[in-house]
Order: sequence, then C-alpha cells, then structure tokens
Amino acid sequence: MAAIKVHGAAYSTAAMRVLATLHEKDLDYELLHVDMLSGQHKKEPYVSYNPFGQVPAFEDGDLKLFESRAITRYISQQYADMGTALGFADPKKQAVSNLWIEVEAHHFDPNAQKLNFELSVKPKILGLETDQAVVAEYEPKFEKVLDVYEERLSVAQYLGGDSFTLADLHHLPTVQYLLGTSAKRLFESRPRVSAWVADITSRPSWIKVVDLRNQAFNSSKKE
Amino acid sequence: MAAIKVHGAAYSTAAMRVLATLHEKDLDYELLHVDMLSGQHKKEPYVSYNPFGQVPAFEDGDLKLFESRAITRYISQQYADMGTALGFADPKKQAVSNLWIEVEAHHFDPNAQKLNFELSVKPKILGLETDQAVVAEYEPKFEKVLDVYEERLSVAQYLGGDSFTLADLHHLPTVQYLLGTSAKRLFESRPRVSAWVADITSRPSWIKVVDLRNQAFNSSKKE
Repeated sequence: MAAIKVHGAAYSTAAMRVLATLHEKDLDYELLHVDMLSGQHKKEPYVSYNPFGQVPAFEDGDLKLFESRAITRYISQQYADMGTALGFADPKKQAVSNLWIEVEAHHFDPNAQKLNFELSVKPKILGLETDQAVVAEYEPKFEKVLDVYEERLSVAQYLGGDSFTLADLHHLPTVQYLLGTSAKRLFESRPRVSAWVADITSRPSWIKVVDLRNQAFNSSKKE
Repeated sequence: MAAIKVHGAAYSTAAMRVLATLHEKDLDYELLHVDMLSGQHKKEPYVSYNPFGQVPAFEDGDLKLFESRAITRYISQQYADMGTALGFADPKKQAVSNLWIEVEAHHFDPNAQKLNFELSVKPKILGLETDQAVVAEYEPKFEKVLDVYEERLSVAQYLGGDSFTLADLHHLPTVQYLLGTSAKRLFESRPRVSAWVADITSRPSWIKVVDLRNQAFNSSKKE
C-alpha cells in the first residue's frame, strides 16, 4: 500500500495538478476515485478530508492535506531530491517562482476556469449551451494575462525562471482543457506563450496524467 | 536608504499584509506611497513594477517582487531568524500552515473582499450605496468559511498550527476592515473565531500597521 494517497477524480484540474507533481517526482501513489459527477465530494466521508468539499485531498503517512497548491508545494519540498527539481535552492530565485505561482492562482486561473466551464464543461460534460456573453467578458481579461506572460517569456525561458518549476506546472490542467476549445487560438497567437504551452504539455509526466484523465472520463461514461 | 522598499498605499489590504510581515520581522523599510485614489497604480512608472497594476510592489536590493503572498513568504523565509517565526522548520507542520494560507487566498479572501467593498469601501470611500443583494449573497458564503475556521480553531490555537504564522497574518487586513462594519457580528457569534480575531488584531506589529493605515487615510483626505 502506497504511503501517498490522492483522493479525487483524475479529470479534476486541481487533482491533475497534484498528479503531475507526483509523476515529475517519480513517486508511487494510490489514487482513490471520488465521483464528482454524483457529488461524492460534497458528502461524508469525503468532507472529513476537506471541509470545503473540493478535490483533491492528500495523505502522506499521517499527514493529511487539501488545497492543490499546498499539496504540490509540500511534495516539491519534501521530495526535493527526487525526479525533477520543481523549485530553486536560491531563495531569491524561489521568490520569483513563488510570485508566478501567485499569478497563476489569482490572475490566470480565475479567467481560465470561467472559459473552461463555458467552452468545455458545459457543452461536453453537462450538455448545456455555452453562454457567449460570459465568454465575451472573460476572453479579453484572459488575453491581458497572456500578454503579461508573452512579455515574461521574453526574459525567462519559463514563467518561474530558467527551468520548469511549479509555477509552470500549476497551469497544465487548465491549459490542457482550453487547448480542446476555441480558446486555443489565444495561446497560438502569442509566439512565446505558444512555444511554452507546447513545451510544458509535451512533458512525459504530463502525458501520463492526461492518459489518466482520459481513462477516468471513459470510466464515468460507462457508469 | 533602506534596502527594502514597499511601493503601495498603507490603506491597501495587500500592502498591509506585507507591512505586517515586515513589522513582525523588525525589518527597516521604506514605504513609497502610490496614490490609488488617483489611479497611480494603473499607470507608468508603477506598472513597470507590477504589470497587473496592483499594489504592493516590493524591492529587496536587486530583487523585485509583486503579489503580496509571495512577498510575505519571501520575507518569512529570507529573514527566518529575525523577529517572529512566521512558519515552521518541520516540513509537515509547514505544509499544514501552507494549506491554511491557500484557504485564506481561495475561500476567505474572495468573500471578505466582496463584503468589505460593499460595507466599507463603497459607503466610506467612494460615497456609494451598499448593494444589499450582494451582501445577502456573500454573507452566507463567508459564514460557511468561518464555520470551518471555528472547527479548525477547536483543534489548533492558530489556523496554521500551534503558533502565529503567515496563515493567520494574511487575514489581518480584511479582518480589520470588516470589524468596522456590520460583518463584525459574524466573527463575534463564533467564540473561537472571536478569540482568534481578538488575539491577532492586538499584536503590537499589527497596531503599528493600523496606525500607518489611518495616517494614509488622513493624508488622502487632505490631498
């Protein structure tokens, strides 16, 4: 039995963030499926892991965590010597990477999630119509963020600095979903953003996480 | 000239978060006022410090940062041996504190900011009427967060663990503003939350930051 357990659905963006970190670190883990489509994450026993009823929850031995970005930070630091270094030993370099972790959480993610919900979740999963007014409101906001990224990627190879870190990794799930929508063109129209997206989404660890997501979707359809 | 510079207004919740951290660490710093009421934070030269046009921005020698929670984390780690320890050396304890840092950012702050805007910024600064429908929408959401806090504070003295950490400190600015509004009763009706609020808002370093805020407000009125 693996010491590390992830409770969640492999199609959840927050769970995928944690799974990507575990794969980058070559860590064994057990994924305990929480069926979000039937609302398992809002009921006991799941809410005893996370009182806010959001996936994922995480266990490493006796340590219990939730909040995906706290989990990835823990894995990155606790298993610093394994797999990919997802941060910097130099505190000033790490501070800059942390800055872009905050930018993802407060600028990129809120807009990306709104667009993902309208362009992907509603039509593809919930069978609902996309609200084009919401798309028209959030696309320009999202583009402003991508413009800042285009500028940042002109002075650094990755958002967090000169190597791939959590600051990049945290973007992967929402980027991956948006690549399957009309929002793909917003990445493609910015050369440095486009190259960065191609780079980070082709990482072997990420391809494994996308496979797990696809399997989880297929299992859900059979249920 | 102090090596540490904070660009921002002392009445900004994000700037207050950084100032509180500097005072807890007994660090000298220079506060360079950015007049938000006239929109200085949305124009050059400020946007060269933060392309998103939000305060504060931060300098420590040649290091330039923005995003308040990345700045406080840097100060806490870089000056770990000075003033108050705002985190834990034990990685599992720190992981739990990091979890509550995320909860503040993703659950507490969005609701607290909405209420603060309606109950404080609009009537007291902008001379606008409070939208009671928005208050009625966000108060129950905010109460659900406080219910989780009440539970958490039954097993730990502070949100982040057994001592005051960044997980608590990050709450101070919005808590302070809300104490001046009708939302105060939401804290008071929960005994452990109420005791925690009384504890953290009475810290000497915080009282200095509130003084700076009051001075900044008075200066703004004279301009």
